[in-house]
Amino acid sequence: MSELIFYDIPGKSDASKAWSINTWNTRFALNFKGLKYKTEWVEYPDIEAVCKKIGAGPTTTKSDGVTPHYTLPVLYDPSTKAVVPDSTAIADYLDKTFPDTARLFPPGTRALYNSFADEFELAVMTPLFLLSVLATCRNLNQRSFEYFKKTRTEAYGDLESITPEGAEKTDGVWSDLERGLAKVAGWIETGGGAFLGGESPNYADIRLAAALIWGRIVLGRDSERWRRIISFDGGRWERFLDQFEPYTAVDN
Amino acid sequence: MSELIFYDIPGKSDASKAWSINTWNTRFALNFKGLKYKTEWVEYPDIEAVCKKIGAGPTTTKSDGVTPHYTLPVLYDPSTKAVVPDSTAIADYLDKTFPDTARLFPPGTRALYNSFADEFELAVMTPLFLLSVLATCRNLNQRSFEYFKKTRTEAYGDLESITPEGAEKTDGVWSDLERGLAKVAGWIETGGGAFLGGESPNYADIRLAAALIWGRIVLGRDSERWRRIISFDGGRWERFLDQFEPYTAVDN
Repeated sequence: MSELIFYDIPGKSDASKAWSINTWNTRFALNFKGLKYKTEWVEYPDIEAVCKKIGAGPTTTKSDGVTPHYTLPVLYDPSTKAVVPDSTAIADYLDKTFPDTARLFPPGTRALYNSFADEFELAVMTPLFLLSVLATCRNLNQRSFEYFKKTRTEAYGDLESITPEGAEKTDGVWSDLERGLAKVAGWIETGGGAFLGGESPNYADIRLAAALIWGRIVLGRDSERWRRIISFDGGRWERFLDQFEPYTAVDN
Repeated sequence: MSELIFYDIPGKSDASKAWSINTWNTRFALNFKGLKYKTEWVEYPDIEAVCKKIGAGPTTTKSDGVTPHYTLPVLYDPSTKAVVPDSTAIADYLDKTFPDTARLFPPGTRALYNSFADEFELAVMTPLFLLSVLATCRNLNQRSFEYFKKTRTEAYGDLESITPEGAEKTDGVWSDLERGLAKVAGWIETGGGAFLGGESPNYADIRLAAALIWGRIVLGRDSERWRRIISFDGGRWERFLDQFEPYTAVDN
């Protein structure tokens, strides 16, 4: 098997180079399966051109609902010449193409995963995004910083005003996040193991771990916001993320 | 193994005797596993006394948030003397106690099932309940009819006014249901099979089938409401329910 090529977006420091929640979905998946790959780092303003060059289609449209929007991660598999954009499609591709590696979607879980993803998006991702978007922007190299700031400000308004410290609306976002994480904790509790997958992780756990590692990296391990997140649910989330430590390798 | 005893609530005719969505969860589960059982039919006003007599605890509280509320299904297993209320707890019990039968929760699906259940409740059950509660009431024998009408009217208001024909609010409920079912259809579509469990059904599919058979029985196969439900998603839901035909046996 030739080495896979994984397209990711770099953060500005070595410690925060792999930071993106969407690409962590894929990095965790690759590491979980023990697959060999090489990372190609692409700054935000270059994503569309790189995608077009390698033949990766858009995954969605821009906010006008019409203009194609190109995103990372993208995976290129030299053995099959497949170019796969979208983290969930990549997960499906990896399960199908490497059937002898650990399954991301064990039999019978794929459709249920979709129901999880819908709920997770609303209950956890929305508030976590609002609490982390400014920190995410600040973690980028200059060209990406400017691109991210411009596009996200167009979509969400002034990034500094989204969840300012001490503001009432930030309190609401925190209680949304706390409730959302408690809901996920409840699902895990009744599942008979430490993971959404029960005794071993599946792709739903990877989604959750990707969200957490993103928060930890962009907010900072010692930040007040991250300390608050890991205070929820009796400290469950730091322990949860620790279990993904074996899958956190960044190749370069 | 001694025969299991399954406590169910009777409808007023032979064809509509097994009608309750909650107890269909259990009946489908028992039939799917090929387990032998006998049904004990209990009218609504007798549920609490029967539960207390057999040692089945309450599953929730009444609308005051304090008074214990006893519900069916309950399963009694003479071999283990276990008395299990609550359909999901019964499903867990059956998987654990009869490990050689078809799994309701295949490995790795239990926690994801919980996320499904949360979404399903909101997206499908809420509008379906509003469209079916009056028909449900009318399907009961006299004593249960009076009990159901009194308790549900206290909780939801006049049953005749909840989703009257031709009213604007009924339109809203229909569009909620259509959107909810479309969401579930989307989950199935990407799951690689005809079921939420993929190629074979799991307990999430049983939940969905129980909701559909309840609708078909209380609304009536030829009713305008049921015809409308099965017109959604290209006729998917009637075909879906047909696949559960082998598990619809009612013992008496």
